[in-house]
Amino acid sequence: MHRNRPIVGAEPGTLFLPEGSPKPQITLHAYDKRSYTSRAIEHPGEIARWLEGDLTIWVDVQGLGDEATLWELAELFSIHPLAIEDIVHVPQRPKTQAYDNHQLLFTRMLSGGHDGHVGLEQVSFIIGPQYLVTFQERVGDVFDSIRRRLSSEKNALRTKGADHLAYALLDTIVDAYFPVIENLGDCIADLEDEVFAGNGDGTLQALSEIRSTLLTVRRSIWPLRDTVNQLIRDDAECFGAEVRIFLRDVYDHCVNASEMVEAYRELGASLMNSYLSVVSNRMNEIMKVLTVMSTIFIPLTFLSGLYGMNFIWMPERDWKWSYPILLGVMLLISLTLLGFFKRRGWFKGH
Amino acid sequence: MHRNRPIVGAEPGTLFLPEGSPKPQITLHAYDKRSYTSRAIEHPGEIARWLEGDLTIWVDVQGLGDEATLWELAELFSIHPLAIEDIVHVPQRPKTQAYDNHQLLFTRMLSGGHDGHVGLEQVSFIIGPQYLVTFQERVGDVFDSIRRRLSSEKNALRTKGADHLAYALLDTIVDAYFPVIENLGDCIADLEDEVFAGNGDGTLQALSEIRSTLLTVRRSIWPLRDTVNQLIRDDAECFGAEVRIFLRDVYDHCVNASEMVEAYRELGASLMNSYLSVVSNRMNEIMKVLTVMSTIFIPLTFLSGLYGMNFIWMPERDWKWSYPILLGVMLLISLTLLGFFKRRGWFKGH
Amino acid sequence: MHRNRPIVGAEPGTLFLPEGSPKPQITLHAYDKRSYTSRAIEHPGEIARWLEGDLTIWVDVQGLGDEATLWELAELFSIHPLAIEDIVHVPQRPKTQAYDNHQLLFTRMLSGGHDGHVGLEQVSFIIGPQYLVTFQERVGDVFDSIRRRLSSEKNALRTKGADHLAYALLDTIVDAYFPVIENLGDCIADLEDEVFAGNGDGTLQALSEIRSTLLTVRRSIWPLRDTVNQLIRDDAECFGAEVRIFLRDVYDHCVNASEMVEAYRELGASLMNSYLSVVSNRMNEIMKVLTVMSTIFIPLTFLSGLYGMNFIWMPERDWKWSYPILLGVMLLISLTLLGFFKRRGWFKGH
Amino acid sequence: MHRNRPIVGAEPGTLFLPEGSPKPQITLHAYDKRSYTSRAIEHPGEIARWLEGDLTIWVDVQGLGDEATLWELAELFSIHPLAIEDIVHVPQRPKTQAYDNHQLLFTRMLSGGHDGHVGLEQVSFIIGPQYLVTFQERVGDVFDSIRRRLSSEKNALRTKGADHLAYALLDTIVDAYFPVIENLGDCIADLEDEVFAGNGDGTLQALSEIRSTLLTVRRSIWPLRDTVNQLIRDDAECFGAEVRIFLRDVYDHCVNASEMVEAYRELGASLMNSYLSVVSNRMNEIMKVLTVMSTIFIPLTFLSGLYGMNFIWMPERDWKWSYPILLGVMLLISLTLLGFFKRRGWFKGH
Amino acid sequence: MHRNRPIVGAEPGTLFLPEGSPKPQITLHAYDKRSYTSRAIEHPGEIARWLEGDLTIWVDVQGLGDEATLWELAELFSIHPLAIEDIVHVPQRPKTQAYDNHQLLFTRMLSGGHDGHVGLEQVSFIIGPQYLVTFQERVGDVFDSIRRRLSSEKNALRTKGADHLAYALLDTIVDAYFPVIENLGDCIADLEDEVFAGNGDGTLQALSEIRSTLLTVRRSIWPLRDTVNQLIRDDAECFGAEVRIFLRDVYDHCVNASEMVEAYRELGASLMNSYLSVVSNRMNEIMKVLTVMSTIFIPLTFLSGLYGMNFIWMPERDWKWSYPILLGVMLLISLTLLGFFKRRGWFKGH
Repeated sequence: MHRNRPIVGAEPGTLFLPEGSPKPQITLHAYDKRSYTSRAIEHPGEIARWLEGDLTIWVDVQGLGDEATLWELAELFSIHPLAIEDIVHVPQRPKTQAYDNHQLLFTRMLSGGHDGHVGLEQVSFIIGPQYLVTFQERVGDVFDSIRRRLSSEKNALRTKGADHLAYALLDTIVDAYFPVIENLGDCIADLEDEVFAGNGDGTLQALSEIRSTLLTVRRSIWPLRDTVNQLIRDDAECFGAEVRIFLRDVYDHCVNASEMVEAYRELGASLMNSYLSVVSNRMNEIMKVLTVMSTIFIPLTFLSGLYGMNFIWMPERDWKWSYPILLGVMLLISLTLLGFFKRRGWFKGH
Repeated sequence: MHRNRPIVGAEPGTLFLPEGSPKPQITLHAYDKRSYTSRAIEHPGEIARWLEGDLTIWVDVQGLGDEATLWELAELFSIHPLAIEDIVHVPQRPKTQAYDNHQLLFTRMLSGGHDGHVGLEQVSFIIGPQYLVTFQERVGDVFDSIRRRLSSEKNALRTKGADHLAYALLDTIVDAYFPVIENLGDCIADLEDEVFAGNGDGTLQALSEIRSTLLTVRRSIWPLRDTVNQLIRDDAECFGAEVRIFLRDVYDHCVNASEMVEAYRELGASLMNSYLSVVSNRMNEIMKVLTVMSTIFIPLTFLSGLYGMNFIWMPERDWKWSYPILLGVMLLISLTLLGFFKRRGWFKGH
Repeated sequence: MHRNRPIVGAEPGTLFLPEGSPKPQITLHAYDKRSYTSRAIEHPGEIARWLEGDLTIWVDVQGLGDEATLWELAELFSIHPLAIEDIVHVPQRPKTQAYDNHQLLFTRMLSGGHDGHVGLEQVSFIIGPQYLVTFQERVGDVFDSIRRRLSSEKNALRTKGADHLAYALLDTIVDAYFPVIENLGDCIADLEDEVFAGNGDGTLQALSEIRSTLLTVRRSIWPLRDTVNQLIRDDAECFGAEVRIFLRDVYDHCVNASEMVEAYRELGASLMNSYLSVVSNRMNEIMKVLTVMSTIFIPLTFLSGLYGMNFIWMPERDWKWSYPILLGVMLLISLTLLGFFKRRGWFKGH
Repeated sequence: MHRNRPIVGAEPGTLFLPEGSPKPQITLHAYDKRSYTSRAIEHPGEIARWLEGDLTIWVDVQGLGDEATLWELAELFSIHPLAIEDIVHVPQRPKTQAYDNHQLLFTRMLSGGHDGHVGLEQVSFIIGPQYLVTFQERVGDVFDSIRRRLSSEKNALRTKGADHLAYALLDTIVDAYFPVIENLGDCIADLEDEVFAGNGDGTLQALSEIRSTLLTVRRSIWPLRDTVNQLIRDDAECFGAEVRIFLRDVYDHCVNASEMVEAYRELGASLMNSYLSVVSNRMNEIMKVLTVMSTIFIPLTFLSGLYGMNFIWMPERDWKWSYPILLGVMLLISLTLLGFFKRRGWFKGH
Repeated sequence: MHRNRPIVGAEPGTLFLPEGSPKPQITLHAYDKRSYTSRAIEHPGEIARWLEGDLTIWVDVQGLGDEATLWELAELFSIHPLAIEDIVHVPQRPKTQAYDNHQLLFTRMLSGGHDGHVGLEQVSFIIGPQYLVTFQERVGDVFDSIRRRLSSEKNALRTKGADHLAYALLDTIVDAYFPVIENLGDCIADLEDEVFAGNGDGTLQALSEIRSTLLTVRRSIWPLRDTVNQLIRDDAECFGAEVRIFLRDVYDHCVNASEMVEAYRELGASLMNSYLSVVSNRMNEIMKVLTVMSTIFIPLTFLSGLYGMNFIWMPERDWKWSYPILLGVMLLISLTLLGFFKRRGWFKGH
């Protein structure tokens, strides 16, 4: 998620479009108990006449790549310039703000996690009395099941208002956190195996990356949790009493998600520790091998060197049994040293 | 405890049964001061007529493996669909929620701990004015002593209401934490011995596992502690004043349990540290052995190599006393080096 | 302090006597401004008639090893069954509870600390309008100075009520924390010397033990501090206004004690760190010795080995000055390497 | 940012000018919807007559190097002696204080960050009903865009009061934090590459410096965040209701900036950890090479030394096939040892 | 600062004089706008007649070594026995307590810091309506500038009451913290250089000491900060409204001082980490040297040993070109190994 910042000292109300964000694709969903219409909107102006009817309206904007369109939408739904800035200058911290005629809600959608990296996408909600506008950074989302439920005639969602739709979308976003977090958990479990198998810098770097990913996820979930709590606690006008019970359920899911993240973060931290210990342990083993071999052969080599000297007067050299006696002495030294190492417990298996 | 999550975007009220959870076995206990009946229930419908009487009713459901039965129970006791979801989608964080006609309470039962692993099982309570429903993930629990007390004619429990029974079960669950935590404590004590005996990666992995188990236990106890406190503080309607004094006792036990867990967690963390230090210490010992042996013999070997050379003109070679003089020099070198090491304190015992 | 727990699911009011706790020795102290009586009580029943008089009564129970006696005392002073359980099921967290006719206070007495271990003993107070009952786990305490002050005719304590006596005992318990903590501090100071002297696993294990002891002490002082604060803040009925000023002094002492413990804990943690660093430092020194010796002699040994070969055609071998030239070359190599090490700063003293 | 402290015991109201701070350069900006004047002020006295008019006045003081000028300004704007002290004795913690006729606000301007170091400069605001005075330590700032907006006839800023100008400057200061923090983030990313490339003490020192820089930045942002929050919460008189909505935006930016700093700090801490692990890993590799080579050749060297001995009676020496047999034995030993190392996984690539 | 504790169970009101504290030297300063008298007091009784006049009185007591004098002062100024105990039983945590006719304030004066150690001295204030009594542990303090200001006729301090004098002294104490903390900061900066220069246990011990000193300083500043805040917040009667503005300035200084201490503590902690890394880094370098040298020469030495064997049948031995060929082979092996090390990046400079 590239950070999209205005330049320093820019006048309020100047939009800096996120690089690479596609031109907005606007889809309008209008429904009540009996009817459901979904159509692509070419120009924001077309929406105006739908707002006058009795249907509940969901305007779904995917892509933020055209300033003119955004300002038209802002005017249509009376969105404050600072709010439209926050929608465009992704990523914003998840937060909610009450305006005269609507509630603003910033959330983040997570995806991926298989390879230790996650995709982040800001989803902004404008929740009005009978309409809902959502802004997404890119095309593609996790809302397909909601669209299916809207199009199904018998679904309860059709009988509820825009607030309930906002809840359903928010619930879907939060539910989608769990598979991502679990993917990260699986990555950590794999890394744990690698750590105890004694692998090298690659494991370390992967562990370091996944910990940093978990931090990013945490920074998405914690503020969202506070935001949902704020919606419940402040009795946000735009949410009916019935929906607020369901928001409490979303809050519980946020708490669960953040607890899972914390658990994995602690696991990651402890794994880093284990990594250091495993490396130290390996070193010990290596050093033991070196020390045992060196310590046994160094004195023997010295002895053999001694009797390789060419001094003219070396009485032992001329004795018949010198050689076998020396071999015996060498054997004795070896066994003594081996015994010493054994007593110290150096041959204990792992 | 396998995590049982609904799929993303599922409609509220869709149940995802925990994999491997057996078909519900329902037992009904009905009692007052004078009588006590306990019977297996084949079909939830049979319970209805018991609810109309004056007896206190405990419906104990073990196993969550049949959706139809669960919905029937939900209807019988007017359980909210979100509540029945939470009962089925184990594990929930321990929490309590007040509904119009009953209080919902989620707890976790712990078992094991001998081998550094614990078993977790969600126990959900529906506490009504004169009835108590408990849902357990699996068959088998720690409530046998309560059942004995119910069946004993003179027991005080028989004279109390459903709230007191709920307290007694909750108390039993919390009391059962202590042996589990103590088992974990014993595992840590064993690991401490192993650490100072200088064992390898096995110890490390076991330590890492037990720390992660303690985290899991902590995540079960802390929210339960808050939950019990909430029951006391919020003056939960379903609990009479007399029972609330006993709940305070349960709260104290939760505090004690969580303190024990914290103590063991700190012990575990400090043990990890000790492990690293012990490994470093061992390395030092090994290196000392290698260095002492190498440093003493390396110059001697060089000297013997020197006089093994075959140059035609090497005057020392032809002197009569060269050999004994060289031996003397070698002895001198060895003693000097040993003295150097001794002065540095390398032979100090541990 | 062995943990004395009831078995899981035990009925409230079942006492599990602490293993090894002696039979209760009851001493009654009765006093007012003019008179003072102290006598051993064989049977709790004897106390009843003293309670009717005008004297202030202190019943000191040392040892919890007889259930019957405890229940008799409970009945005599109307102690709640849950309270008597807490008195017996040691150790309880320090806490205070108000009952209709008396205040319950649980504290812990510390002793020892010289060898890094402390003795813990639970002292429970029942503070009534004109009487004070104390329960101790074992015989022997730190209250001798209080007994002397009671028996001394002119002492101000004689003119005060049971609440002031309770304060005096509590003050003595807290004052006795300081020498224990200072003993632990001395142990840490000794360990600090050992750490920088580079001692081995023994130091490590001692450090690890003392840190765990400090944790235990902390878990005794912090809740006591909160408990005393609660007595002051809640305007506990049983303590007169005048005594509450003195309780503030006890609270200050608790704060001082807990700050000392925190200071020693931070010292201990930093010492653990220093230990690791010292060990690493030692390793560096050892490796330097090995590397300097090996690196200098290994090429020399190679050279001497080279001219120890027996090839028939080795021209250098037959030149007259080969030997002195080679010795010169060897000297040169040694000096070059020594210079290299010196430039790298390996001979800098510590 | 050199710390500029009064000497101990100095009388309140004694100014200690920051060393090297230039003589104040005062610029006066006076504007309303229709007109805009900007002129350099030689002497503070010249400002007085501007204050009487209807224009909004911004007095920008760059440099604190002349006591007389500062006192004149203090008198002109009735600045409290303690306030003028805080303006001069840089650096102050960002804070705000309400006085009878104006609000005092201390902030810090950041610059640089490319090389892991940041420049800090205190900017103090005196926000009066129709005037704004800013004091900067040095000449040069990030306010050029604001000056351009003031001089542009159609700019909304011209129609607003001094409070809105103060907001615009504050917003610019906070916006300027982001590129600095991102520069630091780039430095950390570079260091991360260096760490995994296994570079030495230079990397370590750079990492240590950047972490300390991040701490400094944190100590600038956190108190500013609280300060802005205080302005919003306390309904600071000098800020109109409309401006306060914009302050909330500044607050959000402060929160974002402080979160970025925290994220980089955690990254830095985890990088330190990685560094240690990478170094340990490298050591393992080095030791493996040494051990493999030594362990294979040490026994072979011993064997060759053995048959280099000059004993008169060494039967193997005189056998014809001894030499090839010995070569075979040596090959066998080498292969066995290589196999041993392979089985232990020492040749696994990284 | 030696801890001066009463023995366990001592009666309240028993004074234990700090060991080595000199006999009290009492100086009385009496002043108003027009006059100023300063005289040494032999006997506390002499003070009584001064208290009756209209002058503001400052009684400065240096040294706590005489119980009788202290009790006389206590009686003269109606100091509570518990208060006089706290004055004598140094060190007390900085705190403030309101009594009927005066405010008690405990502070600590710091000095030194050049060598990583600081001197602590308790200064206790009794602030009455028109008098101020200060108790210092030892002779000598940082108040000389105050005394000069009192004796100077035109100084504003002469026109203010005892509360303003107390503020001035407190301000001086807090101002004196800064040079001490900066001295400690300089020590840390020196240690930082030593750490990266790779010095040994001496550096480590110095670092460990300075961190423990910073902890001590922290424990002096933090409670003082809270204490000053309490004086401001609780509207302590003895301080006039005008003085309270100045106290807010003292509070700001306390905050600044505590932030500096925190910054140095974090620096110290990170330095400890760097130390470990530097030591590990050094080890790597040392090992590289050893491994390169050993690995190159070990095979060469083996080869030369091989042809030093005395077998009767070694065909290579008798070939004319064996020697130069072998030298060539040796060169080849060396170059191959050097190339291997170069490819692994072992010769990269630091």
